[in-house]
Amino acid sequence: MGELRIIELKQSVFEANDRAADELREELRHQGTFLLNVMSSPGAGKTTTLSRTIQALSDKLDIAVLEADIDSDVDARTIQQTGVPCVQLHTGGMCHLDAGMTRQGLDALREFIREQSITPHADERAIDGDASDEMELIFLENVGNLVCPAEFDTGASANIAILSVPEGDDKPLKYPLMFEVCDLVLVNKIDVLPYFDFSLERLEQNVKLRNPEARIIPICATTGQGMDAWYDWLIDRVHAWRA
Amino acid sequence: MGELRIIELKQSVFEANDRAADELREELRHQGTFLLNVMSSPGAGKTTTLSRTIQALSDKLDIAVLEADIDSDVDARTIQQTGVPCVQLHTGGMCHLDAGMTRQGLDALREFIREQSITPHADERAIDGDASDEMELIFLENVGNLVCPAEFDTGASANIAILSVPEGDDKPLKYPLMFEVCDLVLVNKIDVLPYFDFSLERLEQNVKLRNPEARIIPICATTGQGMDAWYDWLIDRVHAWRA
Repeated sequence: MGELRIIELKQSVFEANDRAADELREELRHQGTFLLNVMSSPGAGKTTTLSRTIQALSDKLDIAVLEADIDSDVDARTIQQTGVPCVQLHTGGMCHLDAGMTRQGLDALREFIREQSITPHADERAIDGDASDEMELIFLENVGNLVCPAEFDTGASANIAILSVPEGDDKPLKYPLMFEVCDLVLVNKIDVLPYFDFSLERLEQNVKLRNPEARIIPICATTGQGMDAWYDWLIDRVHAWRA
Repeated sequence: MGELRIIELKQSVFEANDRAADELREELRHQGTFLLNVMSSPGAGKTTTLSRTIQALSDKLDIAVLEADIDSDVDARTIQQTGVPCVQLHTGGMCHLDAGMTRQGLDALREFIREQSITPHADERAIDGDASDEMELIFLENVGNLVCPAEFDTGASANIAILSVPEGDDKPLKYPLMFEVCDLVLVNKIDVLPYFDFSLERLEQNVKLRNPEARIIPICATTGQGMDAWYDWLIDRVHAWRA
């Protein structure tokens, strides 16, 4: 085998957008909107997971979706079929969302909701006794990418990553920042575990190396397996945010 | 369904590195080295594909590998087991390689080969009658990412993308630039086609929309299925580059 040579390449500096993100997060907390930043590789199942989640929870929570893609409207059309307000964001080639782009998206969503005369009914259900004309839960489906989205704080209330079984259980070692910034890792496509060399135990060890606090929930968004634990996590977080 | 709202977000400007890439490509052509830029999502099978390819071709071509990752040396250790020279590049958080980073990697690889007293034997096999102490084929395994690597010309002789079946056949619609810049798309993990809603016909249609010239080869890097067509493509390209 011999020596392994490792070269540290010079790193470009990304413009900090932390202050803008903190401001946006504070506004969202004030208006009682839980914004969840959903990140993953391309094809890990973000849209399928969100569609099923919306179908399960849309009678419990006022939900809307910001759907970010470099191009196309494939995912927004899928989400739109669930009946919740959804706006497609095109990043114009950009590989991530930052706080400024997220704010543009939220403004566009608010305008869309007003124009379509959609009335959030949080006041009727009075989850926390606080009437509001704002959404309770907005999913921000980030660009499919395990790298760049993790580097830019969007201003979201929480971050989750979806890792699918076919991608392999070594991903937290190779994309460490993504797993460091996440509050929750959904391990999707567990229905195909028999066909891949993927160990949930190894995955958990690799995640914990990077982020001992991260919750890990195995799911299959197409069959529904494990989804209840994820719904419970989500509802708890929304209520805690609005408390 | 109603109207679908689509918002075009403002695009940041990436620094052009086209001139540096063209210069590097010209040098590589002069020294008879075919540099292949290998791109994919995380977990699509870049390293497995390269390992098997090296095992199949290392008695026909002098091969070396530049292994780029944000962090870790998992992939370089795997490649090292094939016995060919391999240098691990750490991008320090960067989501892609540009021409300058690639040049740093090639310089480090050349130094590593010299220090390890590895002697390329192109002259002995005389593929094109031209004795050389340079590698004939260098794989540049880019960062696992379907977005940013496509935006930066590395100076490589050719670009390929590996798309794996579990990612879905709609990826060319959502990550168009990746498929526009590729000469070849390897569709990997075709052994699990029965378990996923993936159509090779739809994939081909979606690729052709973006890039009518792209060659598409279905493979399974773990079982070896379809790999001969890929080896033939690769050997042809190396010979043409060195002619």
